[in-house]
Amino acid sequence: MNKNPFFGRDILSSEQYSKENLEILVSVSREMKSIVENVGSTDILKGKVMTALFYEPSSRTFASFIAAMQRLGGSFIPLQGMTYSSVTKGENLEDTVRTFACYSDVIVQRHPEVGSAKRSAAASTVPIINAGDGVGEHPTQALLDYFTIIERFRKIDGLSITMVGDLLNGRTIHSLIKLVSLYKSVKINLVSPDILKLPSEILKKIKKRRVKVNEMDRLDGIVAKSDVVYVTRVQKERFTDLNLYEKLKHYYIITPQLLKKAKKTTIVMHPLPRVGEIESAVDDDPRAVYIKDQMRNGMYTRMALLSLVLQKNKF
Amino acid sequence: MNKNPFFGRDILSSEQYSKENLEILVSVSREMKSIVENVGSTDILKGKVMTALFYEPSSRTFASFIAAMQRLGGSFIPLQGMTYSSVTKGENLEDTVRTFACYSDVIVQRHPEVGSAKRSAAASTVPIINAGDGVGEHPTQALLDYFTIIERFRKIDGLSITMVGDLLNGRTIHSLIKLVSLYKSVKINLVSPDILKLPSEILKKIKKRRVKVNEMDRLDGIVAKSDVVYVTRVQKERFTDLNLYEKLKHYYIITPQLLKKAKKTTIVMHPLPRVGEIESAVDDDPRAVYIKDQMRNGMYTRMALLSLVLQKNKF
Amino acid sequence: MNKNPFFGRDILSSEQYSKENLEILVSVSREMKSIVENVGSTDILKGKVMTALFYEPSSRTFASFIAAMQRLGGSFIPLQGMTYSSVTKGENLEDTVRTFACYSDVIVQRHPEVGSAKRSAAASTVPIINAGDGVGEHPTQALLDYFTIIERFRKIDGLSITMVGDLLNGRTIHSLIKLVSLYKSVKINLVSPDILKLPSEILKKIKKRRVKVNEMDRLDGIVAKSDVVYVTRVQKERFTDLNLYEKLKHYYIITPQLLKKAKKTTIVMHPLPRVGEIESAVDDDPRAVYIKDQMRNGMYTRMALLSLVLQKNKF
Repeated sequence: MNKNPFFGRDILSSEQYSKENLEILVSVSREMKSIVENVGSTDILKGKVMTALFYEPSSRTFASFIAAMQRLGGSFIPLQGMTYSSVTKGENLEDTVRTFACYSDVIVQRHPEVGSAKRSAAASTVPIINAGDGVGEHPTQALLDYFTIIERFRKIDGLSITMVGDLLNGRTIHSLIKLVSLYKSVKINLVSPDILKLPSEILKKIKKRRVKVNEMDRLDGIVAKSDVVYVTRVQKERFTDLNLYEKLKHYYIITPQLLKKAKKTTIVMHPLPRVGEIESAVDDDPRAVYIKDQMRNGMYTRMALLSLVLQKNKF
Repeated sequence: MNKNPFFGRDILSSEQYSKENLEILVSVSREMKSIVENVGSTDILKGKVMTALFYEPSSRTFASFIAAMQRLGGSFIPLQGMTYSSVTKGENLEDTVRTFACYSDVIVQRHPEVGSAKRSAAASTVPIINAGDGVGEHPTQALLDYFTIIERFRKIDGLSITMVGDLLNGRTIHSLIKLVSLYKSVKINLVSPDILKLPSEILKKIKKRRVKVNEMDRLDGIVAKSDVVYVTRVQKERFTDLNLYEKLKHYYIITPQLLKKAKKTTIVMHPLPRVGEIESAVDDDPRAVYIKDQMRNGMYTRMALLSLVLQKNKF
Repeated sequence: MNKNPFFGRDILSSEQYSKENLEILVSVSREMKSIVENVGSTDILKGKVMTALFYEPSSRTFASFIAAMQRLGGSFIPLQGMTYSSVTKGENLEDTVRTFACYSDVIVQRHPEVGSAKRSAAASTVPIINAGDGVGEHPTQALLDYFTIIERFRKIDGLSITMVGDLLNGRTIHSLIKLVSLYKSVKINLVSPDILKLPSEILKKIKKRRVKVNEMDRLDGIVAKSDVVYVTRVQKERFTDLNLYEKLKHYYIITPQLLKKAKKTTIVMHPLPRVGEIESAVDDDPRAVYIKDQMRNGMYTRMALLSLVLQKNKF
């Protein structure tokens, strides 16, 4: 008999996932995809309540988790704009989380501070799912990105994965890179302007795993050799110097012309929202997977996570 | 075997409704009314998810759609205050809508810009229901107004329908007038101050249909001859000159005295909110249908629309 | 055959509850507690819709009611931030409430003005549950506090109940004190700085009931004699002089040292949020019931109330 390693556990960082865990998640995500495509929803989480505790606006992640919970038959408590509530009365995060843990079976948390999910997990009596903590982590985004790659290539080993844009602040990059670097024969190409390079502590971490990593400033040379081109938005909200932001925001742009150099099997990914890094003329290219595949996979993988965290015998 | 003309289709403008479509909608709305009055709710949309995508506050329309979806057994994703989310990160409407189309089966959209619902429909893979696009259209409001008139008179032909107030900016007027002018022997009386007259392009459109239309500045003369008195609020938010607004906001006021002139069978309608155009002393008059009938009918007709759009064999 | 005295009735003030009513509420709350602990949820309110109409942010009360409704199988309409919607268009509370009464079976209302719940109840065709009206009342909070005391001591008579802090503005105090003073042999100790004393009209009211009441400025002397120590936050939002607030906010602090004086059976309560009135070092003391017990009981008692208000034959 198998044991479900996710049951009752927090999801805080993509570093928690082992290869074995990822296999389980992929398998359950496929099951969820099949349920949604064939019948729309199930009842396996009937009676369970998820709190969506959002201290930052993030309609995409918020909606994705709520859709996931409801397609599993569960319920939700929508708490957006939390900064305007108890917080203004001076309550600390721990007390807030302890309270919602009394009402619900799982808490999905988005918060602007790095480490906040970990703090909540220490205080909570129910599992915390980190839906983004500042420039820290966004492990469910990493999972949906991973699932999108696996669904297309059926493997990670041997792939050449190119990450483009704001690698300094892009937490989706930080989270995904920890997953794909579990596979030793993967090649990772980091394309960014010098001041938006991947933080050195993350670079060190993945280099230790003996993955091949190349840092570069130019995108056009590497496109032809890439299986995955993962593009990110330059995060205006992290800049204090807006002139600098303006200079960098369109440092790389994915165009139909550029994609002429790419292989037929290459996929172009983006966590969205985008603000011009990928021209809309690219949207109809079959290699563009950032909308339909990635967004849908977000719902499937979150359904998988919720069902695994809340159901002992799910696996 | 009948075909459901609404299945999988967008609801963008009240111009889409033909007389035949309206008959279907009225019939299904009556069915919904009966369900709510007798048992409260059904399960016919179990497993379906509706995104309520609101870029403008509108608690009434928002609540009405959510109640409708839940009384049909379906689920919802509440997205109010959208202007504070992805939009602030610079995302365009099309990308936002494409995303929510991945999570949900239908999107109900409220947006301040005329034409935004049409733009969303072009981008979306699931049906868009326009819940108001600026001064453009509000087709589900028109439908509930139409249903309210039909439920009372069992016909439109032959009725004298008087529309009062801000006919320039009142999109509920713009939408309703297109419906009632499908019936040739209807009389439409347009009562407004000169600078708040019905836009000329709409006036031309309904005149082409050879409906009898009278424009006037005074209300008291026409009340006695009206079957329907449809009152609207002067829309402060559309005015740049607030002195002008103050002069016009109570240009017409429905009072018990005024209603003494009206027929016993006349109905007084208002899309709400009101800010003094109808005195509260009128509320208990049996001819006042703006709260109980119109509001309830809003839920019934939205239930009808949602079930028709989402269920192939509904009709 | 018993009659359910709550069916179809508003819940406006804790003064509504008679001893007999409280017995029913306690009995049904225990039933709800057992349901949640054993199976998580039920379906008894399937098809019923609750509007959560919040004019003030209050994530805790909002979440508690939504969790309660969903664990009963019912649905909800989330309306936070109401001040930004119809209100800005100038609508009065009565019209708003009449509208939501058309869509839903019960309305839970939070509003900053004293007496607003009563106004809504007069306008509404469905029951109103007061979830806080300014410094007025918060009757469901009083009920959960009462239930917490009863669950621990199985009685109120004979207890020594100490209320500490901002007794002037603390509506949870105002509501609870009316409940416990129904029991004649209870002792009530009111501990506050002079300018935050219990309003004299409430003091007169409970003195008429011949309950023993002592007012004092010092906390340490009474702790050893108390069965219940109910602590409240000094409500910054009610102060105009912030210097005064700063002087008073930590006038009393519950510390592990202070609790050494207390009995083993004493319980420490707080409606939360707290901002330093109880040190976090106290949290692990088994006498601290403010998080797990009080918060959970909030959900159970709200489940009890909703089921009684909406189900004729519940009792």
